[in-house]
Amino acid sequence: MLKQDTTVPDFTHADSHIRELLDCVHEIADLAAIVALAEWDQNTSMPVGAAEVRGNQMATLQGILHERWTTPILGQLLEELSDEVIEQKSFTDADHGLIRETHRAFDRATKLPRKLVEEMARVQTASFEAWRHARTNNDFARFAPWLKRTVALQREIADHLGYDETCYDALLDQFEPGMTASKLDRLFAPVREVSLTMLRRIQQSGHTVDDSCLSGEFPLDRQVKLSKTLLRGMGYDFSFGGLAESPHPFTTSFGSPFDVRLTIHPEKHFIQPAVMATIHEGGHALYEQGSAPTLTRTPLAGGASMGAHESQSRLWENPIGRSLPYWQGQYAAVRETFPEHFAKVDVSTFARALNKVQPSLIRIEADEVTYNLHILIRFELEKALINGDVAIESLPGLWNAKYREYLGIEPPNDAQGVLQDVHWSSGFGYFPTYTLGNLYAAQIFYALHKAFPDFDDRLASGDTSFILNWLREKMYKFGVIYQPEDLIRRVTGESPNPEYFVRYLTNKFEAVYGLPKTTN
Amino acid sequence: MLKQDTTVPDFTHADSHIRELLDCVHEIADLAAIVALAEWDQNTSMPVGAAEVRGNQMATLQGILHERWTTPILGQLLEELSDEVIEQKSFTDADHGLIRETHRAFDRATKLPRKLVEEMARVQTASFEAWRHARTNNDFARFAPWLKRTVALQREIADHLGYDETCYDALLDQFEPGMTASKLDRLFAPVREVSLTMLRRIQQSGHTVDDSCLSGEFPLDRQVKLSKTLLRGMGYDFSFGGLAESPHPFTTSFGSPFDVRLTIHPEKHFIQPAVMATIHEGGHALYEQGSAPTLTRTPLAGGASMGAHESQSRLWENPIGRSLPYWQGQYAAVRETFPEHFAKVDVSTFARALNKVQPSLIRIEADEVTYNLHILIRFELEKALINGDVAIESLPGLWNAKYREYLGIEPPNDAQGVLQDVHWSSGFGYFPTYTLGNLYAAQIFYALHKAFPDFDDRLASGDTSFILNWLREKMYKFGVIYQPEDLIRRVTGESPNPEYFVRYLTNKFEAVYGLPKTTN
Repeated sequence: MLKQDTTVPDFTHADSHIRELLDCVHEIADLAAIVALAEWDQNTSMPVGAAEVRGNQMATLQGILHERWTTPILGQLLEELSDEVIEQKSFTDADHGLIRETHRAFDRATKLPRKLVEEMARVQTASFEAWRHARTNNDFARFAPWLKRTVALQREIADHLGYDETCYDALLDQFEPGMTASKLDRLFAPVREVSLTMLRRIQQSGHTVDDSCLSGEFPLDRQVKLSKTLLRGMGYDFSFGGLAESPHPFTTSFGSPFDVRLTIHPEKHFIQPAVMATIHEGGHALYEQGSAPTLTRTPLAGGASMGAHESQSRLWENPIGRSLPYWQGQYAAVRETFPEHFAKVDVSTFARALNKVQPSLIRIEADEVTYNLHILIRFELEKALINGDVAIESLPGLWNAKYREYLGIEPPNDAQGVLQDVHWSSGFGYFPTYTLGNLYAAQIFYALHKAFPDFDDRLASGDTSFILNWLREKMYKFGVIYQPEDLIRRVTGESPNPEYFVRYLTNKFEAVYGLPKTTN
Repeated sequence: MLKQDTTVPDFTHADSHIRELLDCVHEIADLAAIVALAEWDQNTSMPVGAAEVRGNQMATLQGILHERWTTPILGQLLEELSDEVIEQKSFTDADHGLIRETHRAFDRATKLPRKLVEEMARVQTASFEAWRHARTNNDFARFAPWLKRTVALQREIADHLGYDETCYDALLDQFEPGMTASKLDRLFAPVREVSLTMLRRIQQSGHTVDDSCLSGEFPLDRQVKLSKTLLRGMGYDFSFGGLAESPHPFTTSFGSPFDVRLTIHPEKHFIQPAVMATIHEGGHALYEQGSAPTLTRTPLAGGASMGAHESQSRLWENPIGRSLPYWQGQYAAVRETFPEHFAKVDVSTFARALNKVQPSLIRIEADEVTYNLHILIRFELEKALINGDVAIESLPGLWNAKYREYLGIEPPNDAQGVLQDVHWSSGFGYFPTYTLGNLYAAQIFYALHKAFPDFDDRLASGDTSFILNWLREKMYKFGVIYQPEDLIRRVTGESPNPEYFVRYLTNKFEAVYGLPKTTN
C-alpha cells in the first residue's frame, strides 16, 4: 500500500505575527459561530414571537463583529505583513491562507461604510417581508420597489468593494473568490448546450421513468430515523453534529470540525425530499467535519467557497447519491425503515425513480438535466439587473420568456415564477455558485473514478469510507487555505473544466433513458 | 367589577441619563441573552464533541460582557447619577431599578479583579469534572481538593465584594439581594421546627399514602404531549416559548418576555417527574413571560431574585399543582393522554399520590415536608465551610450526622450523600434561596386566597387564568424593579413571614394524613 500524505495543515505558531493574527481571529471566529448558532435556533426552535428581540440581538452581535474586523490592531498587523516581509518568512500554506482571508475580511469591513452596511441590513429585513407577502399573494408589484432598492444598494456596495471588469464581479467575488462573470460565461456555455440537448433527446425518445414507488405513507419519525442511518453510512459523525427539522433544509457549523449540524424537512407522502436532502446536506456537513482541527476558530475552518461547498453537496447527492451502486449498498436501510412499502420494490426501480427528468417551474425540485437551466435563467437576469440593462418592471415578462425558451414551459403566475426564490431579497451573485458546484462535482467524480478503478463495486458493497477518506485528504482538511480554482486543481490535477459535467450528464442520462450513445 | 391597576412600568425615555443608560444595557442584555441561548443549546442539542470549542466561545462572550460592564462610559454615567441628582428628578420606579441594577453589576464587575474571575471560572470547570468523577466513583477524596480551592476563592471573592456581618452574606447577596445569613436564621427557625414536627407526627400516625398509580408504562412522546397541554392550561404562551428535553429540567430566557423556554426529563415508568417538572418549570416560565415588554433588553426583565423565582416555581408546583382542586380542573388531560392507565384511577387518588411523605436521601426527590430539611442541612454546612468552622475532610461525616438527626436516615455512601448536588462545584450561597422560595410561595398563596375567596372552586372548574392575571399585575410585570423583600411586601402586604409556610404545611399535611387539627 502506498503511503498517503496525511500531514495536517497548520500555522507557524512560533511566528509572533501569526500568533497575534490568530489571537484576533479566534475571537471573531467565536462570535461568527455564535451568530450561526442564533440563526440555527431561529430556523429550528425559536418561537414566532421572538423575531423582534432576536433581531436586536443579531444586530448587536453583527455590530461587535464589525468592530472586531475593523480594529486598528488588525490593520496594523496586516500592514506589517507586507509582501516583502511575507516573502522573507518560510510561512506554511495555512499561514498564507490566514493572511489572505483576514485581509479579505478586513478590507471588506473597512471599505464598506457602516451606514451602508446598516442600510443594506434594514432593506434586507424589509425586502424579505415584502417578498414573503408578494409570493403568498402573487403580487410582484409589492416586491418591486424593494428589489429596485436592493439593486441600487448592491451596485453601491460593488463600487465600494471595487472590480476590474463588471460591477457584478464584485458581488460574485464575495461568494466565489477570484471568479468573474466572464469566466462564468465561458464555463457555463457548454452546460447550457448539454442541458438543452439532453432534454430534447429525452423528450424526443418518448421513454419515461416511473417514480410512483417514491409516493406513499411515510411517517415523519421513521423518515428522521432513516436520515440518521444514511448519514452514519456516509461517515457523518454525530459526536460532532446533530439533525433537526426546519422549513428549508440547511447545514451550518458552530466551529468546524467540532459542531456541524444539518436539517431536513420530511414530507409525509413523498420519500424523495427527506432522502435526497439528507445526502445533499450530508455532503455539506462532511466537508465541514473534514476541516483540520488545527484550523478551528479561524476563518480557514470550513469550505473554500460557496461553489466548493455546493460541489460536495451535489457530488454526494447526484453522481453518488442517485446512482445504482450507491443504493445497492444502502437500500437495505430504506427497506428496513418502510418494509410494507418497499418490500416489493427492487433497488434498481428505486434508484431509477430518483432520476426522472421533467421540466418543472420550481428550481429546488428540478432534476439533474434541467437544474442548471434554472440557474442560468437567474444568472442571466441578475447580471442584466445589476448592469442596469433591464428595468425591474420588465423582470416577470423576461423570466417567463426565458422559461419558455429554456424549458418549454411557462409559469402560470409570478409566485411560481420570478418570486419563487428568497435570494434576491438579500442580494446578488449567489445563484451561479450552484452550477459551479455541479461542474466541480463532476470533475471530482471523474478524479475519484480514476483513483479507484473499482469505484462502483466498492460503493455497491456498502462502503463509502474510501470516498470520504480520499476527499478528506485531498480537499476537506485544507478548509479555506486554498482559493477555489487552486483547490480544484489540487484535487483533480486540472483547472475547472466544464467538459467533465458534459460527459457525466450525457453518459448518465443516455443510460437512464436508453438513448443511443454519443460519447464514451 | 373593580378597576385593576394595569399601568405598565416604564422608563423616563425623555431623560438623557436614562436614555444613555439604556443604550449601554441593551447591548449587554442582548449578549447575556445569547449566552443563555448557548447554554440552552449545550443542554438540549449540542454534540458531546463540541464541548471544548463551545467553552472557547463562551469565554469570548463572557470576556466581551465583562468589557461592556466595566466600560468607563458606564462608570461616568453612574457617577453623574449621584443621590442628589436622582432626588431632583421625578424618576419612575423602573428608572430607580435600572440605576440600582446597573450599579450592582458595574460594581461587581469592577470590584472583582479579572484574574480572580478567570481563576474562578477555570476552577469551576475543573471542579465540575472532579465532582462528576467523584460522584460516579463514590470518591469524595477526588473532589475534596477542588472544594477546598473553591472555598478559598469564594472567600476571596466575598472580601472583594464586601459585607457588613459575615463573609457568607456577600455570596448570598449575589442571588438574593439584601438578604443576610442572620435574617435567614430567623426566617428558617420556624421552618425547621414545623418540618421536624410534621414528619414526626406523620410517622407516628402510622397512616400511609398509596402512590402506586404513578408507576406504569408512559411512552415519552405522550408525556411530552401532556406537558404541553398542562403548560397551555397554566397560561404559558408557546408563541413566546418552547419545550425541549434535557438531562435536568430547567427554564431559561433569551429576552423576557418574548422568548422563554423550558425543558423536562420524562421517565418511562414513572409519570410524576415529567408532570411535576412541567408545573415547576412552568411557574418559572410564567414569571419570565410576565415581565412588562417595556423592560425587555434591560437587566430589569425577568425575576427579582433566585428566591422570588423559586417562589413562583414552587407556588405553581406545590400549593397549586399538588392540590385536589387543581387536578379536578386538569385531570382530564392526564386521563386522555394515558386512558389505559388512568381510566380506573379517580382524581383524588391521583392528587393524593403526589403528596406522599417519606424521608429520602436525595433532595430533588423530596416531598414538601422534608424538602426544606435537605436545604437546611446544606445551608448550615456551607455557612460553616465559608466561615472556616469546619475542615473539608470532616464534611462527609457531618453531612451524614445531619441526615441522621433531621431525617432519621443515613446515606450508605457519599455519592448519595455529600456528593449528590452539583452546586458546590461552582460556589456557595445559592441553596437557601430554595427554602426562601417556599416561604414566599406560601405567603403569596394565602394572599391569593384572600383575594379570591372562591379560589378552590375556580381552580376546580379548570380556570387558572385568574391566578396568572393576579400574579402578573401584582408581581410578574415588575420584573427586577423591586428588590425581593420589597416585592413580597407589595404582593402580600407584609414582609417575608415564615408563619404562612408553617400554617400551610401544617394544614395541608394534617388533611392529607388525617391527623388531628392543631391550627385553623
